[in-house]
Amino acid sequence: MGLSASGTSRRELLTAIGLVGGAAALYQAMTTMGHAAETQFHGPPNLSGARPGSSVIVLGAGLAGMLAAYELSKAGYQVRILEYQNRAGGRNWSLYGGDTYTELGGATQHVGFAQGNYLNPGPWRIPHHHRTLLHYCKSFGVALEPFIQFNHNAYVHSADAFGGKPQRYRAVAADFEGNVAELLSKAIDQKALDADVSPEDREKLLEALRGWGMLDKDMRYVTGLESSEHRGYDRPPGGGVNGAPTPSTVSGFHDVLYSDVWKNMSFFMNQEFQTTMFQPVGGMGMIGKAFARQVQPLITHNAKVTKIAQDQQGVTVTFLDTAGGGVTQARASFCVCTIPLGVLNQIENNLSPNLQTAVAAVPYSNSVKIGLEFKRRFWEEDDFIYGGHSFTSQDIGLVSYPNNRLFGDGPAVMLGAFASGLGAYRLAGMTPQERIETALTQGSVFHGDTYRQEYSNGASVAWARVPWTLGCCARWSEDTRREHYQTLVAVDDRVVLAGEHASYVGCWMEGALLSSIDAITRLHQRALEA
Amino acid sequence: MGLSASGTSRRELLTAIGLVGGAAALYQAMTTMGHAAETQFHGPPNLSGARPGSSVIVLGAGLAGMLAAYELSKAGYQVRILEYQNRAGGRNWSLYGGDTYTELGGATQHVGFAQGNYLNPGPWRIPHHHRTLLHYCKSFGVALEPFIQFNHNAYVHSADAFGGKPQRYRAVAADFEGNVAELLSKAIDQKALDADVSPEDREKLLEALRGWGMLDKDMRYVTGLESSEHRGYDRPPGGGVNGAPTPSTVSGFHDVLYSDVWKNMSFFMNQEFQTTMFQPVGGMGMIGKAFARQVQPLITHNAKVTKIAQDQQGVTVTFLDTAGGGVTQARASFCVCTIPLGVLNQIENNLSPNLQTAVAAVPYSNSVKIGLEFKRRFWEEDDFIYGGHSFTSQDIGLVSYPNNRLFGDGPAVMLGAFASGLGAYRLAGMTPQERIETALTQGSVFHGDTYRQEYSNGASVAWARVPWTLGCCARWSEDTRREHYQTLVAVDDRVVLAGEHASYVGCWMEGALLSSIDAITRLHQRALEA
Repeated sequence: MGLSASGTSRRELLTAIGLVGGAAALYQAMTTMGHAAETQFHGPPNLSGARPGSSVIVLGAGLAGMLAAYELSKAGYQVRILEYQNRAGGRNWSLYGGDTYTELGGATQHVGFAQGNYLNPGPWRIPHHHRTLLHYCKSFGVALEPFIQFNHNAYVHSADAFGGKPQRYRAVAADFEGNVAELLSKAIDQKALDADVSPEDREKLLEALRGWGMLDKDMRYVTGLESSEHRGYDRPPGGGVNGAPTPSTVSGFHDVLYSDVWKNMSFFMNQEFQTTMFQPVGGMGMIGKAFARQVQPLITHNAKVTKIAQDQQGVTVTFLDTAGGGVTQARASFCVCTIPLGVLNQIENNLSPNLQTAVAAVPYSNSVKIGLEFKRRFWEEDDFIYGGHSFTSQDIGLVSYPNNRLFGDGPAVMLGAFASGLGAYRLAGMTPQERIETALTQGSVFHGDTYRQEYSNGASVAWARVPWTLGCCARWSEDTRREHYQTLVAVDDRVVLAGEHASYVGCWMEGALLSSIDAITRLHQRALEA
Repeated sequence: MGLSASGTSRRELLTAIGLVGGAAALYQAMTTMGHAAETQFHGPPNLSGARPGSSVIVLGAGLAGMLAAYELSKAGYQVRILEYQNRAGGRNWSLYGGDTYTELGGATQHVGFAQGNYLNPGPWRIPHHHRTLLHYCKSFGVALEPFIQFNHNAYVHSADAFGGKPQRYRAVAADFEGNVAELLSKAIDQKALDADVSPEDREKLLEALRGWGMLDKDMRYVTGLESSEHRGYDRPPGGGVNGAPTPSTVSGFHDVLYSDVWKNMSFFMNQEFQTTMFQPVGGMGMIGKAFARQVQPLITHNAKVTKIAQDQQGVTVTFLDTAGGGVTQARASFCVCTIPLGVLNQIENNLSPNLQTAVAAVPYSNSVKIGLEFKRRFWEEDDFIYGGHSFTSQDIGLVSYPNNRLFGDGPAVMLGAFASGLGAYRLAGMTPQERIETALTQGSVFHGDTYRQEYSNGASVAWARVPWTLGCCARWSEDTRREHYQTLVAVDDRVVLAGEHASYVGCWMEGALLSSIDAITRLHQRALEA
């Protein structure tokens, strides 16, 4: 059967394909026919036919582990989760006022945020196409609200442009587009692209460049009301006698280029960051809490795994009770291990040598996040910024404005840093108080003296110092993918690994969940064959 | 004092300017120094010193009229509002289930929306820089929530491209940017732009074009994982064994150009539509209701003004009580008239001839909005679209997805048309039922048979048929602005006009409010001089 829809309606064809080939064939056909392919999630796993008495130990009560436990136990498996922390959720985590957090190195922070305020040290935004996560949020009753990812009115700052003065994103992006449009129209005018664009398309392209780039009638990007409609006005339109607007002055292209605004423009077009995005009402940690409500009786907390040993009949996990003391063993037919690779690599085990090599081969990223609580929302009241991010070439990377309680009175928490790479190493090397000092100094580039004046208290998480992950998330390269990925995700006799590190959606909760569904589906097959 | 910030900190300079020149000078200086100028709103008007016994009649209980009444009465004036409708708010208006609306021509619609659902026939979104409106929303207790203006995952449709098949915005926008980047890089390569771009900037520009346009290492925009990161995948990244993504196929540039996606891209960069935007919780009409709570005792409803006559001592307004019957006169020292120009033009008056000419000179737009209630949110559940708009070259112009109760169960109202120009004339010429039929047929281009299958009920407002406005909002041209604007906004002895038509922020509530503040400020001066 061909997949061309000509001669018959697409819907008729899809129905026929669905009847003959089932859901997978239907999905494949929809994709081929240009229908959106947004996700690899096609519903909860089908784990029917579990053998009575079959048992599974799940290591880790993060999202991957809790989903595995939820679905396996629904399917009839006896499930037990061992979790190192006294809290479920893993990297799905919000820090609230009254919380305490001790990092590697021993520094303890007592979070002082006001009621309802929080820092999400790990995941903080959910793409609309992360269907697995959205499915379980709905199933488990997690209320979501929009996460303002894209804000034309936030700032971009580079030490290399505009004399180090931050600019509104909209102004620099408009100037980038205007200059690109003008240059391309010049090239067309000079017949430099006659071989590449047909005469018919050329006319249409010039029309597009004029309208997209806000060029004037001579195809020039110049200061005027036209360009100001995109980049903003010196005096915006108003009412009454003095209502007429006055234009703003377009920037020189050199500064626009050296602002690296194209990186932000490209970032916003990245599918993972495209609008609409979401966040749970009350903090990202609400998701972990909702998952935990489904599997709480299965979780043993404060269980530090010290050994994983499988044999021909099952898997024995040895763990230390870090609260009560004492070493215990748990045994089951199978094991789903969601322990982050850097931690797993330090646990005695008899996994196959290839898998051990794979576990050791994947480095973790090292982001640092800093939450700063301010006495009032000056970014809204003074700068008219509601959600979104201001980007900087400094170590803090960006500052991000809260998306909840917009227009609210009283204190609010901004994300004062989301650092990666070298900047994150430098911040991780500081004490929590030094990190906040640095965040205040660097963030002042956007908000001047107000930033320090309105500051109240803060908290930070350097993922390289998080005891239970030893890093933020797995960073696969093309080389490590080729060499180790299939080994890492394969069922290793009676043990299967799951988590964002066992996915192509690395560093996202969706990757953890999709990995978990795939892992338990294959482990279930393995169990049926046992 | 010069305005250069060199040698002294910007803050020190601004402080000095503020001390010497006051707020206006400070604001002017901030603007000149490149600080964002976002609004002409600088706080509520200062109307101190009103003479005891001075009175004002306000015509129209829309936002402009109610703001005028609120501020004038706070300042000590005796104020009375005459309103044609039995409802305050004017074009700030939401239609809910149980509401009835009769248009010119006599057709009556009984709105059947479920509890909590609504259509905003007039304004429906608030830019973050409409500071006057946001100020009074906060003052009057109107709760706001994000309005999802920009959605990469909604559709664009043109009869002239892609064989009439709608495409996801992200895919076509990515293809537009990719092709523009590739063409410009070719032109640079051919040295066509050596006179326009310095060698140093050229390297930086090529780097930017590659990263912004998702070009490959040969600076070509081709099918691959790189371009798919922006335009979407055929098979997106997933978890486990089959986690690897497969790329989607880039479209031919001809179709991309003829899709007119550049119009949408340019639209989203228009300052009036830049993120973040807002809507009141519960419908736009909540704003009118909140304003009305401030001035309700001052309003006389069902008052159809038939004559406006000013003399040397005051203004006499004659009006018909459309509920109780009978003709009455009201008299005051001054009058703020917010009646839409097309209606005012039909009311007997003795305004100065130049003002009468100006009133008659400004045409009104004729938009049509259609609300369609569906049994479920298939656009979310099936198409992963949360808020935002899908655009079409058909008469309906666009469909827009609700921004409230995202992920909710039960019926929801989509905006099934926001037509203007010829399309709006054609829709306005139909019966309400025919409009809905047309909206269902045209909207099906995006959502197939589901659109009709899930349809429940609908309502429409054709602004050309709205009895109390005779059009949607004032459409000034450069010529009419030059000839008539200053006449229209000037105080005409004892009468001043206010409303969006008396502003450069036409068709926006902000324009009505800024106009009102400016008008009553000047009327107050006039009153002090009387």
